[in-house]
Amino acid sequence: MSNNAYELLANQLTDRGIDLRRVESAIKAFEIETPSWGYGNSGTRFAVFKEPGAARNLSERLSDAAHVHKMTAACPSVAIHIPWDKVDDFAVMRREAKKLGVRIGAVNPNVFQERDYKYGSLTNVSPRIRKKAMNAILECIDIMRKVDSRVLSLWFADGSNYPGQVDMRRRKRWMQDALAAIHECLPRGSRMLVEYKLFEPGFYHTDICDWGMAALMCQHAGNNAQVLVDLGHHAHGVNIEFIVTSLLDEGLMGGFHFNNRKSADDDLTVGSINPYEVFLIFVEILAAERAGIVKRPVAYMIDQSHIIKQKIEAMIQSVMNIQTAYARALLLDWDKLADARRRNDAVEAERALQEAYLTDVRPLLGKVRQDKGLQPDPIIAHRESGYSERVAKERIGELKGAATWG
Amino acid sequence: MSNNAYELLANQLTDRGIDLRRVESAIKAFEIETPSWGYGNSGTRFAVFKEPGAARNLSERLSDAAHVHKMTAACPSVAIHIPWDKVDDFAVMRREAKKLGVRIGAVNPNVFQERDYKYGSLTNVSPRIRKKAMNAILECIDIMRKVDSRVLSLWFADGSNYPGQVDMRRRKRWMQDALAAIHECLPRGSRMLVEYKLFEPGFYHTDICDWGMAALMCQHAGNNAQVLVDLGHHAHGVNIEFIVTSLLDEGLMGGFHFNNRKSADDDLTVGSINPYEVFLIFVEILAAERAGIVKRPVAYMIDQSHIIKQKIEAMIQSVMNIQTAYARALLLDWDKLADARRRNDAVEAERALQEAYLTDVRPLLGKVRQDKGLQPDPIIAHRESGYSERVAKERIGELKGAATWG
Amino acid sequence: MSNNAYELLANQLTDRGIDLRRVESAIKAFEIETPSWGYGNSGTRFAVFKEPGAARNLSERLSDAAHVHKMTAACPSVAIHIPWDKVDDFAVMRREAKKLGVRIGAVNPNVFQERDYKYGSLTNVSPRIRKKAMNAILECIDIMRKVDSRVLSLWFADGSNYPGQVDMRRRKRWMQDALAAIHECLPRGSRMLVEYKLFEPGFYHTDICDWGMAALMCQHAGNNAQVLVDLGHHAHGVNIEFIVTSLLDEGLMGGFHFNNRKSADDDLTVGSINPYEVFLIFVEILAAERAGIVKRPVAYMIDQSHIIKQKIEAMIQSVMNIQTAYARALLLDWDKLADARRRNDAVEAERALQEAYLTDVRPLLGKVRQDKGLQPDPIIAHRESGYSERVAKERIGELKGAATWG
Amino acid sequence: MSNNAYELLANQLTDRGIDLRRVESAIKAFEIETPSWGYGNSGTRFAVFKEPGAARNLSERLSDAAHVHKMTAACPSVAIHIPWDKVDDFAVMRREAKKLGVRIGAVNPNVFQERDYKYGSLTNVSPRIRKKAMNAILECIDIMRKVDSRVLSLWFADGSNYPGQVDMRRRKRWMQDALAAIHECLPRGSRMLVEYKLFEPGFYHTDICDWGMAALMCQHAGNNAQVLVDLGHHAHGVNIEFIVTSLLDEGLMGGFHFNNRKSADDDLTVGSINPYEVFLIFVEILAAERAGIVKRPVAYMIDQSHIIKQKIEAMIQSVMNIQTAYARALLLDWDKLADARRRNDAVEAERALQEAYLTDVRPLLGKVRQDKGLQPDPIIAHRESGYSERVAKERIGELKGAATWG
Repeated sequence: MSNNAYELLANQLTDRGIDLRRVESAIKAFEIETPSWGYGNSGTRFAVFKEPGAARNLSERLSDAAHVHKMTAACPSVAIHIPWDKVDDFAVMRREAKKLGVRIGAVNPNVFQERDYKYGSLTNVSPRIRKKAMNAILECIDIMRKVDSRVLSLWFADGSNYPGQVDMRRRKRWMQDALAAIHECLPRGSRMLVEYKLFEPGFYHTDICDWGMAALMCQHAGNNAQVLVDLGHHAHGVNIEFIVTSLLDEGLMGGFHFNNRKSADDDLTVGSINPYEVFLIFVEILAAERAGIVKRPVAYMIDQSHIIKQKIEAMIQSVMNIQTAYARALLLDWDKLADARRRNDAVEAERALQEAYLTDVRPLLGKVRQDKGLQPDPIIAHRESGYSERVAKERIGELKGAATWG
Repeated sequence: MSNNAYELLANQLTDRGIDLRRVESAIKAFEIETPSWGYGNSGTRFAVFKEPGAARNLSERLSDAAHVHKMTAACPSVAIHIPWDKVDDFAVMRREAKKLGVRIGAVNPNVFQERDYKYGSLTNVSPRIRKKAMNAILECIDIMRKVDSRVLSLWFADGSNYPGQVDMRRRKRWMQDALAAIHECLPRGSRMLVEYKLFEPGFYHTDICDWGMAALMCQHAGNNAQVLVDLGHHAHGVNIEFIVTSLLDEGLMGGFHFNNRKSADDDLTVGSINPYEVFLIFVEILAAERAGIVKRPVAYMIDQSHIIKQKIEAMIQSVMNIQTAYARALLLDWDKLADARRRNDAVEAERALQEAYLTDVRPLLGKVRQDKGLQPDPIIAHRESGYSERVAKERIGELKGAATWG
Repeated sequence: MSNNAYELLANQLTDRGIDLRRVESAIKAFEIETPSWGYGNSGTRFAVFKEPGAARNLSERLSDAAHVHKMTAACPSVAIHIPWDKVDDFAVMRREAKKLGVRIGAVNPNVFQERDYKYGSLTNVSPRIRKKAMNAILECIDIMRKVDSRVLSLWFADGSNYPGQVDMRRRKRWMQDALAAIHECLPRGSRMLVEYKLFEPGFYHTDICDWGMAALMCQHAGNNAQVLVDLGHHAHGVNIEFIVTSLLDEGLMGGFHFNNRKSADDDLTVGSINPYEVFLIFVEILAAERAGIVKRPVAYMIDQSHIIKQKIEAMIQSVMNIQTAYARALLLDWDKLADARRRNDAVEAERALQEAYLTDVRPLLGKVRQDKGLQPDPIIAHRESGYSERVAKERIGELKGAATWG
Repeated sequence: MSNNAYELLANQLTDRGIDLRRVESAIKAFEIETPSWGYGNSGTRFAVFKEPGAARNLSERLSDAAHVHKMTAACPSVAIHIPWDKVDDFAVMRREAKKLGVRIGAVNPNVFQERDYKYGSLTNVSPRIRKKAMNAILECIDIMRKVDSRVLSLWFADGSNYPGQVDMRRRKRWMQDALAAIHECLPRGSRMLVEYKLFEPGFYHTDICDWGMAALMCQHAGNNAQVLVDLGHHAHGVNIEFIVTSLLDEGLMGGFHFNNRKSADDDLTVGSINPYEVFLIFVEILAAERAGIVKRPVAYMIDQSHIIKQKIEAMIQSVMNIQTAYARALLLDWDKLADARRRNDAVEAERALQEAYLTDVRPLLGKVRQDKGLQPDPIIAHRESGYSERVAKERIGELKGAATWG
């Protein structure tokens, strides 16, 4: 990255009528939450290949997340998964996070891994198990208070594998009643995000299968319930940016689980398969913000499963790809776009998007990073830091009592 | 079909504890609406192959529909498409229908074929065109009054082909405002059905793309708005029966456009690709009826495009396939199913479904048809009637001023 | 199942001109291989829920398979997975199988679970790992000799997750060279089956991704290489029966891994989502057999992952569903079908299929089973046998050194 | 576009070790064929909206194509469609093309639009129609000689809509025999390209449904048969670049029909939905060229249906998007990529791709265009030319006897 490149780009953008300062300050203010579970081992149903140095408990996960934040200055919060990240004293953990320069973000209850949840959690035919799942979530709300989290992030593996296996309609009622009850218990000022998913681990039906079902659930639950969009949870051919803009319009767009997919819920690096789609999503968000209809901030969170890439590198790469998409969207000439739309000129409308998308924003992102005291390329910075080599030496063996993936 | 077969089946069903009289009377009462446009020529974007004797205007379409009803005694109403079925005097047409033994059912406004609608109808960026589309629909409401129709059936081709082409959020607002305005004008006692579709003719985005969007639209519009489910309008892998049961639970399940698909919106004969799916849909409807939550009758309508099959035969075949699925669903042992579900016994739950699905219900359907004075096999009856040969001779040339498909 | 039902059906079929004796003897001769790994625990990437009594090693798996054969008289062979089913002395195991009334069928090398295979087996960029995978397969060929197996069944998890990650073309060469080398080593009279899969565990690319690639591989390898079709390994909308008939026509149709899917590679019970599809596949096979072009027998094997259903029940249910589809296909009136096709009469052609498909063949299957000394319903027979309860009591704890799934 | 931008980019690329002259000369030499039918009216099955000034016969289509070549200097050849482009004297037409600065490229027989082809062309059950289709193709080979075309481009609408409708295996034989016969008749030095398509207009089965079937057909036909890849003819989730590299490896990669899709065979502007995919395809082609395995040039052709965009603009935009993808691929650091692959470093391999993909190549393309005497932005040049306004005035009314789409 040369100063020349930045200066040339700055001039070009200024010539296009773009308020460079505004763009740069938007990039600077843009925050992405990383997930604690993204730093531990994960895999597919066929195998879990363990990575040397992968984080084994919350402390190590916070350390890795703090390192990612150090490299990017864009990831000050960390989502946690309960019970994987359960500790005896969350007040201690909160202080530890603070010392590391991060804070705990969304709390994600895991109500799918225990044997009891084989046939569902909040929609289980057994009242005992429904209650157990409810209690697990209430415990997470308790943890929210302890770690000062404002987001309860709910994903359910609930579903079925065979026609006839369950009473889908009755389960819908159980789910909406339970979510309404949970909504009642949310800490003041916080919200719950309801995630949907087309399939997996249920192959025949999933209780919250798409944005429409999640939106209904949120309507039934109350004002502090919003939808969580995971980019890998749709059927092929679905227009995600249209879902995003529709949820924004309904006041139901809560946040994202960013990742990318070619096949199913692949949990690949954001932007690795179709980077243009991420850009289009940000275009819709910025449009809604410009229209003044976004009342609560959209929560940008990463949810990936790094099974081939080194985990910390993959996380940094994802952050960079999101920033690239966001920065490009910030360069859009809205007047040109609006004018083309007025005339039904699809060619010119697309050219307005492309003008922004084709721009190489790396000098701009590099500049913003340098202003924050970072190296322009966080991956290189990370490699030079020696962090991964160091933790690989320290993190030998399994930790006693540490809950984990898979 | 032998009497032996019916008697054996009747005994078997009675042994299974099934109330045969109830089943037979349910089958007798079951009505399916056929679409006027299903009797005219249609095709793909590559070619429209004209069929000798295909109906050319509403009179001929009503005649064909009446013939199908004569063969099946199950199709007393006919959906119409405006302007394809526009006539000078609908009162005359209504009497003509009555004389033929049928009545006019759902009224379907066509707001996609005129050049003005190239970029949308109710969501067009042009206020003039939005108004024009609205007027076309209001005209249909007027026609509803004239033909005593209780259903306004709304499908919109509105969508876009390219990222950036349109302001999707603004169009959502236009759509929901327009639908609410239409809702205001509905004749007393009638309802409007809002159809969704994943794609086509819009390839990038469709304004009412899925059941979630249609449900939101209905909520915004009012109590007499419900969702219309076309079996070919979903992404692959979507569980349609779960959508049906969810809409039923929300009081938003209005009706069906029955057809089948292997690829996209193929508009093939119902049950020709996956007959089990049709059965599963009926299972959900019957379950909801048994639970007493179905407040307004579900409208069963066919919407197919017969481009390979002789049109009237294909229609009769579809009716028969729907009846087969419905009759099988009626044979379900609900107690056995409920019991298996209580025990999470997926094998036994599936066996309960299969017990009903594997039953050969043709003797039963044949008996019901004979009770109604029909031949047991309507396709054979149709072929013996000579109807198609006769109209093929009569319907030579194009009719002046007759609006048509494609 | 009553004798009346069988007699009525027999009369009906005879009236239709069907040679009942031929149909019954075809059903009697029809064999389905069950997989050893279908009797052990399995799961999804989210969880593996252990089933009480699930088989823990080859002995127990053979015992379960033998029990399924005892209930169905249709499953005399068992596919094995190496190293999961590796034992010190295969000669002993072979005798044990024989004593149980079964034999060992296809040998399936597992070259995906070890850490070395993280980035591929035969297509790994490392010559050492490629060689290791080759040796593992050669060891399986050795086992084939010991257990007198005639089928080497090859599925590879080889693929990649990200654009750029691997040199796909070079890997193609490695794969085809390796397969050709393996082909050279096959025992006389045996064949190798090459399985394809669209995705998973590779999400971006799979080295043998579809039937076209598998067919090319077989062509490169030699005459004793044929394609294995797993019903869950295709994209949505793909016509599997057309693939089957095409492979048959090319002499490349080796065998099946039967299962069903709604979403991805769900590994559900055969016929649980779309039973009509299984029927259509058998129609194509019977058509090819009638045409005299099937030179080597098609291997019918089950490959399912029973994570919700009791494993043995699910296996028996699958066998029954396959038999149902096969029996129905045997009832097809080929002359009627051919005649309809000659006249491009799609309605009549479909009615020929439906005539067979709608027939309730349970009395027929029940009769065949009784002729073999079985109960007509193998699921009921199994439940009455007390087998599962017995092994659940015996199989407590994990077995030392037993390789297993997940 | 400023000189500064080009100079800066040139310096950056040179610093990266890229041979700029080589890149520029590759871009200069890169040719894309446009289709005559892309300049005429087209639509969907729901409507065809006519565009003022759309070309009505071959003369007008050649004129439009020549104009696109004038604006881009990259499109010297025009694919034609017979009978749409049939003229009395092709020698005259060939001279007319030459005078306009273009030449006739691939010849595309249309054997789907006539009534006779309703149930297939080369696979029709009727020998008369099979022969008719064969003759139509032989006539095209005759035209190839007259216009000095080297490419016969074969796409067949042949397929079926219903299970049972046709004998798929017999049709496979008819197709391969016919293609082999056609191959025999090819003019010396020419080749035939066999296109595949998943579905449409056949919804149940397509005779040449995927690359595997097309490859088999080419193998049966002979050395001058190769596969044509249309980017919109695959199931969702299919990895097209892997197909391309596999066909290249087999010597079977003949050419492309470029377009883009979100839903099905949408025929949208190349790169409008996933521009990264186009880049990845070019990466595979360049890799194969570098490996010296590309024996015959890949034919780059556009096949789009511009139903929303102004046709000439859409064509120019597509050419530009293809050039952008190609230029980016030329910037790849192959050593860096190879090194990352050797180490299974997916992060670094992806970064090598991104380094090329993120580069804004517009200054480079602008420079190349200016070197050829063009304006840097062909869309602007086109708009300034007044060409479209002029032809819109001239082309009033339908032309007598002109065959056309839809």
